[in-house]
Amino acid sequence: MSARLEPGRVIADLRELQRRTGDEDGAQRVCWSDTWTEAREFLRELLAELEIEPEVDEAGNLWARLEGATRDAPALALGSHLDSVPSGGWLDGALGVLAGLEVLRAHARAGGPARPLVLVDWADEEGARFGRSLFGSSAFAGTLDPDAVRELRDADGRALPKVLAAHGVDLDRAGECARRRAGLGAFLELHIEQGPRLEAHGIPVAAVTGCVGVERLRFAFSGQASHAGTTPMDMRCDAGLAAAAAALAIEHIPGAEGGVATTGELRLAPGIATAVAGEARLTVDLRNADGDALARMLRAAEAACRAAAGERSAELSQEQIWRIDPIRFDPELVGAAREACAATGAPAELVSGALHDAAEVARVLPAAMLFCASKRGISHAKEEDTDEADLIVAVETLGTMAERALAT
Amino acid sequence: MSARLEPGRVIADLRELQRRTGDEDGAQRVCWSDTWTEAREFLRELLAELEIEPEVDEAGNLWARLEGATRDAPALALGSHLDSVPSGGWLDGALGVLAGLEVLRAHARAGGPARPLVLVDWADEEGARFGRSLFGSSAFAGTLDPDAVRELRDADGRALPKVLAAHGVDLDRAGECARRRAGLGAFLELHIEQGPRLEAHGIPVAAVTGCVGVERLRFAFSGQASHAGTTPMDMRCDAGLAAAAAALAIEHIPGAEGGVATTGELRLAPGIATAVAGEARLTVDLRNADGDALARMLRAAEAACRAAAGERSAELSQEQIWRIDPIRFDPELVGAAREACAATGAPAELVSGALHDAAEVARVLPAAMLFCASKRGISHAKEEDTDEADLIVAVETLGTMAERALAT
Repeated sequence: MSARLEPGRVIADLRELQRRTGDEDGAQRVCWSDTWTEAREFLRELLAELEIEPEVDEAGNLWARLEGATRDAPALALGSHLDSVPSGGWLDGALGVLAGLEVLRAHARAGGPARPLVLVDWADEEGARFGRSLFGSSAFAGTLDPDAVRELRDADGRALPKVLAAHGVDLDRAGECARRRAGLGAFLELHIEQGPRLEAHGIPVAAVTGCVGVERLRFAFSGQASHAGTTPMDMRCDAGLAAAAAALAIEHIPGAEGGVATTGELRLAPGIATAVAGEARLTVDLRNADGDALARMLRAAEAACRAAAGERSAELSQEQIWRIDPIRFDPELVGAAREACAATGAPAELVSGALHDAAEVARVLPAAMLFCASKRGISHAKEEDTDEADLIVAVETLGTMAERALAT
Repeated sequence: MSARLEPGRVIADLRELQRRTGDEDGAQRVCWSDTWTEAREFLRELLAELEIEPEVDEAGNLWARLEGATRDAPALALGSHLDSVPSGGWLDGALGVLAGLEVLRAHARAGGPARPLVLVDWADEEGARFGRSLFGSSAFAGTLDPDAVRELRDADGRALPKVLAAHGVDLDRAGECARRRAGLGAFLELHIEQGPRLEAHGIPVAAVTGCVGVERLRFAFSGQASHAGTTPMDMRCDAGLAAAAAALAIEHIPGAEGGVATTGELRLAPGIATAVAGEARLTVDLRNADGDALARMLRAAEAACRAAAGERSAELSQEQIWRIDPIRFDPELVGAAREACAATGAPAELVSGALHDAAEVARVLPAAMLFCASKRGISHAKEEDTDEADLIVAVETLGTMAERALAT
């Protein structure tokens, strides 16, 4: 018997969640906050209607299980994250959790799934409070190093381990949640695109083939701070202009290699109207789905900064902030996602330019994602939105995809 | 009888001033501070040796008068400012005050000047605490608007009128110091160049013909903040790159018009690695000794920002922060300064790229300046320095120039 989803219930749940945990500035479900706890309370209420009592694992991830006809068969996991950035959007993360819940509900209504269905709400995907994204899913995937986050503090100076402890999470035991991999067969995540591509092509939902690799680094240009009035133009060593020239050159790198290149952080020192900038720090974020192309982008960015510094006799140094290789989702699941999307008349696929919990999970389990169109590509803002018609198609597509995954 | 200066005493006084009011980070004579009061106490001690009791006027300027043979003849005023920026240099301002004092001393030793000699220590030239430069000299010149500074507060939130009152200055009566113009014939100021030009040409001291005009304004570029990973390059509206392109174009404006153009402040928002900058604020400081050329520089900078914004479909707005017309010093006094410099073998003249008390005084009195070379052009830093040999030449040149001015 096929499970028929009621996507309108997902939209209603999302709106109720926003009423309970958002305000006029947007969603306020920052992880490890009281409001986030309230969001989970709401999820517990909804699960209680299915007589499911969720469990919270060692990393703070919440798990809810709907038993299948075959109890010992590998379960299909669905989910995303309820946490948000401060003043975020109503859909980012929450859509995937509440759409996953509706899949569970639909199968419960239809008499239960063939194999167990598991809903997971990953903890602290956003990293909004401590700057460490994908906390819960990386603990699950075994890539969380407690020592790398132990010293992190929030804006009020509170230490990460203490804040987690208040929510029942022992940082040093977070990795033990990996034991939940046993018994799981695959993971599917529906998420909003958070970019403008699907809307631009009039496509409501698409298969995601993987996540781009990222190289993020900071270049420091060191010139000579001097008086804006008394330093002749030909005796200046303006670090700000060197960084500006580098940023403009870096913008052209994707033209040759694809991907994207961003220089969203540029800080000058002393940074005042009356002084030539002696120091400039330029943060460069490079992304590409192809690992070799990403490596070439990195070399091109380094060369651009060297050239810009050299032209003004500025000193240049660089430090890596973060990097990650491109991640490819499970080809079979991606194929199922593509087919599910084709059923809606839009056989689209794309690479995610952002990271998601599914990228961590893909390290240890077959995983794939669906993206739903985002209006104007806006996310991490209260203006984040998706047409209800597109949300309905996306939820139904998740249901179709889950059906296919359960059948294999 | 000619007054022979002893420049070594000026250097000794400067070093003692630094011992009393500086520390390992540099000079700490920020105006309206206890340390500034200590600096003035030291000046009072030195004046007491000449049996001169100084007076402080309504704006906090300190005046010391050495009577001349002709009591009613217009006095020649010499001076600069004892106040410094925080962690400033030992010479900025203090050189002109203590060199002026030595001119008084020399004339006292020689039996007194032909006409009265007046030493003035202008209050709060730097504006380091409240951001308003040239406080005392602008009150003297009649260009200080009390209402324009009444609301200013220091970094600790203390209001300017209260802080001034604690030093005996009633803001609303500061302008009354203008009455001291009566009886003054001219004003001469020796100051360090605070730029690298004299050192580059091996010249110890030069006549200053005037101060550049300044146009200072802020351009705001408004694009669209978006996710660094999910926004394709061809769908971006990066305000930061628009501002970077504008800054690079503005750098070329002085090539056509002379003067200098500086973009020392550039702020991006949200200003993070993972977002395309939606907003960028670029502060532009343009300076030129020629008023027409300065006006053309302003139009060129506006055009450069419009072009850079237009290229990326960013919105552009601008606001004026400050402007001042070029100021020309008194031709006769500049001629005397040039001749005095020629006597040292270096007949140099230059335009000041920075503003000084003499620029305000020049509005109401014949005024002129001498610049002394600055090592590496560094100022407003503890590294500020000038070779003693150059200081000696500069002090002697001030003496020569004063002699000429007294004789006319």
